[in-house]
Amino acid sequence: MYRQSLALLTDLYQLTMVYGYWKAGIADRQAVFHLNFRRWPFQGGFAIAAGLETAVRFIQALHFSSSDLTYLDTLTDSNGKKLFEKAFLDFLSRFSFSCDIDALEEGSLVFPYEPLIRVKGPIWQAQLMESPLLNLINFQTLIATKSARICLAAQPNPVIEFGMRRAQGIDGAISASRAAFIGGCVATSDVIAGKLFNIPVRGTHAHSWVMAFEEEKEAFETFAKIMPTNCVMLIDTYDSIEGVKKAIAVAKSLKNKGFELSGVRLDSGDLARLSIEIRKILDEASFYKTQIMASNELDEYLIRDLKQQGARIDVWGVGTHLVTGKDQPALDGVYKLSAIQDSKGIWQDRLKLSEQSAKSTNPGILQIRRFFDGHFYSGDAIYDETMGIEKNCTAINPIDPNNQLECTGEYEDLLKPVMRKGELVYYLPSLPEIQSHTLQELRRLPPEMERFLNPQPYFFGLERAYYQKKIKLIRQLRKKS
Amino acid sequence: MYRQSLALLTDLYQLTMVYGYWKAGIADRQAVFHLNFRRWPFQGGFAIAAGLETAVRFIQALHFSSSDLTYLDTLTDSNGKKLFEKAFLDFLSRFSFSCDIDALEEGSLVFPYEPLIRVKGPIWQAQLMESPLLNLINFQTLIATKSARICLAAQPNPVIEFGMRRAQGIDGAISASRAAFIGGCVATSDVIAGKLFNIPVRGTHAHSWVMAFEEEKEAFETFAKIMPTNCVMLIDTYDSIEGVKKAIAVAKSLKNKGFELSGVRLDSGDLARLSIEIRKILDEASFYKTQIMASNELDEYLIRDLKQQGARIDVWGVGTHLVTGKDQPALDGVYKLSAIQDSKGIWQDRLKLSEQSAKSTNPGILQIRRFFDGHFYSGDAIYDETMGIEKNCTAINPIDPNNQLECTGEYEDLLKPVMRKGELVYYLPSLPEIQSHTLQELRRLPPEMERFLNPQPYFFGLERAYYQKKIKLIRQLRKKS
Repeated sequence: MYRQSLALLTDLYQLTMVYGYWKAGIADRQAVFHLNFRRWPFQGGFAIAAGLETAVRFIQALHFSSSDLTYLDTLTDSNGKKLFEKAFLDFLSRFSFSCDIDALEEGSLVFPYEPLIRVKGPIWQAQLMESPLLNLINFQTLIATKSARICLAAQPNPVIEFGMRRAQGIDGAISASRAAFIGGCVATSDVIAGKLFNIPVRGTHAHSWVMAFEEEKEAFETFAKIMPTNCVMLIDTYDSIEGVKKAIAVAKSLKNKGFELSGVRLDSGDLARLSIEIRKILDEASFYKTQIMASNELDEYLIRDLKQQGARIDVWGVGTHLVTGKDQPALDGVYKLSAIQDSKGIWQDRLKLSEQSAKSTNPGILQIRRFFDGHFYSGDAIYDETMGIEKNCTAINPIDPNNQLECTGEYEDLLKPVMRKGELVYYLPSLPEIQSHTLQELRRLPPEMERFLNPQPYFFGLERAYYQKKIKLIRQLRKKS
Repeated sequence: MYRQSLALLTDLYQLTMVYGYWKAGIADRQAVFHLNFRRWPFQGGFAIAAGLETAVRFIQALHFSSSDLTYLDTLTDSNGKKLFEKAFLDFLSRFSFSCDIDALEEGSLVFPYEPLIRVKGPIWQAQLMESPLLNLINFQTLIATKSARICLAAQPNPVIEFGMRRAQGIDGAISASRAAFIGGCVATSDVIAGKLFNIPVRGTHAHSWVMAFEEEKEAFETFAKIMPTNCVMLIDTYDSIEGVKKAIAVAKSLKNKGFELSGVRLDSGDLARLSIEIRKILDEASFYKTQIMASNELDEYLIRDLKQQGARIDVWGVGTHLVTGKDQPALDGVYKLSAIQDSKGIWQDRLKLSEQSAKSTNPGILQIRRFFDGHFYSGDAIYDETMGIEKNCTAINPIDPNNQLECTGEYEDLLKPVMRKGELVYYLPSLPEIQSHTLQELRRLPPEMERFLNPQPYFFGLERAYYQKKIKLIRQLRKKS
């Protein structure tokens, strides 16, 4: 989609580190990095993984163009000395991705500290993935999660995403439309997302249509003749109640010409009171099938409140709060080195210390095992693939080590092989398939964990032997430093 | 930058409305739209306009590609009927922008209800600009404003933006780097923004560099040899105090090889306490010139608090909060029709009613006049160009009509001609020029209006005769509907 090469979509320190690995002669040493977030998004009880296909496409297209290298050649330090040697730029120009990638499937439930992506390969390449993977995965996971929350609030009514105008830039709109669909939205107003991802697009007219005419009724009449079968009229340009009456009058006058008033849309005022009143007016005129669509700063909390107050809204249009994740506009994902081969080719565990043990990063080469009791997921155990895992195991919550789970029953290992030595080995599902997966995942999450605030937390932990290894490593590092 | 044509970066209803104008035979009727926001961003006292050049470049590149038209041809309504006639798609394919655009210069102070952009031309073209202009201008204005707030808190210290990993998608990173620079940041970590916009880039190494080595000291030593003159060491991988001691030891051992420890970076822990302690350790070792750089969830409030607590931080690295505008991730900009020529070519005012008069949109063809007392800006008057304005005039605050300003002194009309009949007639300033303009603008804003919360509000109002015209129009419309 971008004409510009995106190899420089990275933080400068990735390039200076890669330069350092190259100069130090360790660029090809094998390393493992994991991407995970730490805080439950929106103070809720789950997140929905998203962005994998976007990341794969990004990696497949990745190369340093000659203009990228020319630009890098211009960079100097504060003394005017070139930042990078020519031979290093030649090295970059030969970039050909050769890492293994394992990842959580898009639409899967994911919880704090669980790797969404694992990258294993030459450290210089795996290092270079940090900034773009974080950018792409953090954002889409955030928005798919927000979308799932909003769709849960609206169910059984459909939600349409139309946040482009308030989105954070061009891609903030396009990627958000993709992620919103993954989370459960049925359509978008964003035409380019429709074209690129084959998401259904929706939309009829705005206030300016009404204002372009001398009279609101004339505007409705003209529109009705042009859009006889798919007509949603925006009724709040001057007065919502008068607006719906005019819409009805127009619809009646055109009824024998095959016109059908599909819906009316409200975009201001008290949506509970107005929708109830408008439903009554529509029903009294026998427009039983005409739907009421509402928008205006909606989010999961407001939708829930409006429903509780008896709002008669059939379709919810959600923009700003959805596409920006308004109450928490960033997922706090990190991408950390967890193991590196020494000069003899033996894997060495690595972790970054933190004042709290729970916040220290997880070492090793990780996998997530999710257990299923036949109705619901019962918990997740993170383990180290080099250590293996027993069929029945104990998992220890890293934040509260006394909270433990005996893991039994059906299970599935969640990180799936996506790339091997840089080649795609994974079937990339279609967006409708991903959306179905999201919906199935949410059905398997106990309802008390879907609460918007202070839900019962889902159990995730570290497999016991792995947990003990991590604690030992923390103690060693604390002693040493 | 995009390979993909961006003509479909729009909401579907723009296209259905344009289809409607075309079908109704009024597509070429002259119309005026204005883009403005309504709420003070971040509850502060100002906003910084940004995004104009991006918008101009977008418009200049705009065309409907054959794949765009093929896609539009596939769209159907719920009955399976094609949404658009073939002849309409031909009409779109001949799109050639012919509107006039007047706009506030990037880096200018802007306040609620003031037009940032005015578009005048055939209604179908002006209508099509709505979604992309809102997308581009809303976001960059938001981030330039946030950046200005953060830079005000940090001054006289420099601020570096490094938010890519938490930004909302690819363009959420790139556009944010541009806007952050406009707001006052001195550099970015974002290499592609450096390449595209010639913004200085900065960055040295992350935790993974340290973790790639057996010992932290070895990691520092290796990095120091590779980056002898531009070396900022990240010291908190294991323990910040031990980390700075190791950095000093390495720097001392390499001192006669021309090595200079430019800085140390802190990314966790209590930044006030740690920076004070680390400054002491550095000074005791005679590393007076080594700067302390700090990052970790910083925003204007935290920077102000840290300074008040005596933090010894020389350079501030700000990411997430800056590039997402975390406490308010969307500007509530709208784009409204305000006048249209009737069939005789006479301008007719238009406004959208709201329950509160102040929230009704502004009719007419608008200009902003800003008054200057020689030291500070004293207030703004919005007026209708077709009505003109007296040299000395009274402006009425639309939210509180008893709050009025007698406007006198030097003044400037802020909306500048940018495009005429689709041709660029404006010198697009360089980013450093825009940044200088921002800084000058902030010097002309009274300090009590720069407070982060509950500032003294800057005066903006509607010129008296224009205000009276608007009120009259509101009364007429209320009576009619």
